[in-house]
Amino acid sequence: MRILVLGGDGYLGWPTALHLSRRGHDVGVVDSFARRQYDFEMGVDSLVPIRSLQRRVRTWREVSGLTIDAFVGDMTDPVFVIETLRRFEPEAVVHFAEQRSAPYSMIDRQHAVYTQVNNVVGTLNLLYAIAELDPSIHLVKLGTMGEYGTPNIDIEEGFIEITHQGRTDVLPYPKQPGSFYHLSKVHDSHNIMFACRIWGVRATDLNQGIVYGQETEETLQHPDLATRFDYDGVFGTVLNRFCVQAVIGHPLTVYGSGQQIRGMLDIRDTLACVELAVTNPATKGEYRVFNQFTESFSVGQLAEMVVDAYPGPATIDHVAPPRVEKQEHYYRAAHTKLLDLGLVPHLLEASTIRSMLAVVDRHRERVDLDAIAPTVDWRRTQSTLPTAGAPVDA
Amino acid sequence: MRILVLGGDGYLGWPTALHLSRRGHDVGVVDSFARRQYDFEMGVDSLVPIRSLQRRVRTWREVSGLTIDAFVGDMTDPVFVIETLRRFEPEAVVHFAEQRSAPYSMIDRQHAVYTQVNNVVGTLNLLYAIAELDPSIHLVKLGTMGEYGTPNIDIEEGFIEITHQGRTDVLPYPKQPGSFYHLSKVHDSHNIMFACRIWGVRATDLNQGIVYGQETEETLQHPDLATRFDYDGVFGTVLNRFCVQAVIGHPLTVYGSGQQIRGMLDIRDTLACVELAVTNPATKGEYRVFNQFTESFSVGQLAEMVVDAYPGPATIDHVAPPRVEKQEHYYRAAHTKLLDLGLVPHLLEASTIRSMLAVVDRHRERVDLDAIAPTVDWRRTQSTLPTAGAPVDA
Repeated sequence: MRILVLGGDGYLGWPTALHLSRRGHDVGVVDSFARRQYDFEMGVDSLVPIRSLQRRVRTWREVSGLTIDAFVGDMTDPVFVIETLRRFEPEAVVHFAEQRSAPYSMIDRQHAVYTQVNNVVGTLNLLYAIAELDPSIHLVKLGTMGEYGTPNIDIEEGFIEITHQGRTDVLPYPKQPGSFYHLSKVHDSHNIMFACRIWGVRATDLNQGIVYGQETEETLQHPDLATRFDYDGVFGTVLNRFCVQAVIGHPLTVYGSGQQIRGMLDIRDTLACVELAVTNPATKGEYRVFNQFTESFSVGQLAEMVVDAYPGPATIDHVAPPRVEKQEHYYRAAHTKLLDLGLVPHLLEASTIRSMLAVVDRHRERVDLDAIAPTVDWRRTQSTLPTAGAPVDA
Repeated sequence: MRILVLGGDGYLGWPTALHLSRRGHDVGVVDSFARRQYDFEMGVDSLVPIRSLQRRVRTWREVSGLTIDAFVGDMTDPVFVIETLRRFEPEAVVHFAEQRSAPYSMIDRQHAVYTQVNNVVGTLNLLYAIAELDPSIHLVKLGTMGEYGTPNIDIEEGFIEITHQGRTDVLPYPKQPGSFYHLSKVHDSHNIMFACRIWGVRATDLNQGIVYGQETEETLQHPDLATRFDYDGVFGTVLNRFCVQAVIGHPLTVYGSGQQIRGMLDIRDTLACVELAVTNPATKGEYRVFNQFTESFSVGQLAEMVVDAYPGPATIDHVAPPRVEKQEHYYRAAHTKLLDLGLVPHLLEASTIRSMLAVVDRHRERVDLDAIAPTVDWRRTQSTLPTAGAPVDA
């Protein structure tokens, strides 16, 4: 199939593009390098060095004999979006091209507005381009499990049957997102559902859990093919941070009680899930939601697992939670649709954590301790980060 | 109370400002005149002539002895928003300042993006300004009953208790909005709910039905105080259109079967509802939703009522529905919270329709027949209106 990966230079976009390429698909990648720009803005960097997109594509051709087309431009530019789709003629578009950090969206007003406008407008441009050029192009959109929040009932996959006052309907699952970033994904989901209804667009919304891991079968073929490893307080994710802290001998910092539960998955499962969604497309006009995670863990459990897997001594510290979220809550979320399509999960085992610890150890001289602490507090409208402007009324 | 009415030059914003002023509140209005600009863009005009905001305010002072402060600027400008709030020091902000036409949002990609960015960013700027300056400022935000769509169960006021797999929670009512405009209001609702949660902002979301009528106790005090009467295919509402069609001897154009049901209310009840919300504020951190309508009618019923009320002959034509919506559907929506606060509704009677017909008759020489027909088709990504640009790939 011809598959265009938007955000194909990013943490997951790049390994997804490689995976789909190796699996025999014709792959194009689109990126504006916004993610690399955020690193400059925040003064941080991927722990694992990454090459330019141009060099990545060249190395992949040398290693595999396979070609990936690269398109450089911004999804908020509607002319770029439609011209890229017209040139590449995809059968499926995998859409990773959004600002994806909750803390980044909570830095200040400007970053909240940027996140929502960037994500919502990019997706609107894409929906219009698909509807105008060819509504049979299957949109595979990255959402997040964070769209649901932590309701006190089971989370279903996108929709829920509700019986109320003696009548029954299947309705969109109520959303309680926990940051302006998560909200942008909820806005996208509503917009996409509507485009499917009015224009017959077909779409799969992948409500993804937190991804861990950095190595895939394809990226391991050459150091130039490596993807990012983020551990900083703004773009880093929890398991990465714990691994870095263990290796450098810093206590593992658990936010709050650590009883917050999250759905998670191995980076290799992300690639498999995306391919399953692409090769088993939604039908004309269908908007479907897959919950894309394989296991649930509390943050405290993850810390314990890293402590257990790390060969040296490692301790755990509880720090004040920067987010406004329930510390203790019910959490049970359905995730059977991708399993039904054939997903065979890589579960989180000590060996997985040890391979992540090994990645960190190889690059330990690149660790920037100052980057790890949480710098964005949900309760404040202004972070103390230098990139947060003064309040407009200052 | 000190009340700032955003969008205070518009169809409902202006009479709301007058009403609150007469009721003894200190009122300021904010407007960018975007609504007047849309008239230029579409080549249409209010049936009833309206004066400049400056003249309206002057006339009101002459007629009533009361002062309304006017602030001219755009809600998407964060500096303007926070400076206006700092200068006026409101205790409540009534937020009408959004692009409010569903067909306008469906003209083409550019109008969809404009509507969502304008509405969402304006509201985000407002939320940040309130949180930074004084979270005790009560936000009264105009939403729409169209956020809910037409589920096959009863519509509740913002939240619904769901029992699922033996567990129960009260969750945000699932939304199925029917245009990019309605979607912008759903995005707003989610953003506001979140701001209440993290910053302790207090907000009332008024999910308003379709408003009819043009005359209020205050606007009737002088012709300069009149508010808009829109009947065109983009900004006009259904009852206005039927009244114009009856007066000029054109068949009343019912879209589709006419069995679509909508919640409606008299313009005088809008003013009363807003005052009830303002004088009975939400508590700190509370996000509450009032369904602001008084009766439900099918579009066909409304046409019949106008035919019955019109003293001359009048006929009904069914035209192809421009919107993608269910023609036949269940519709029962709760609307008790404003009644509980003391709302005494003006129900839709023949006398109301006759007073609307009289307004039309007084201005019949201003009717532009060409403006009435629907010009925006939900199924197409481009309207044939001159304001719709060529597709970007043309």
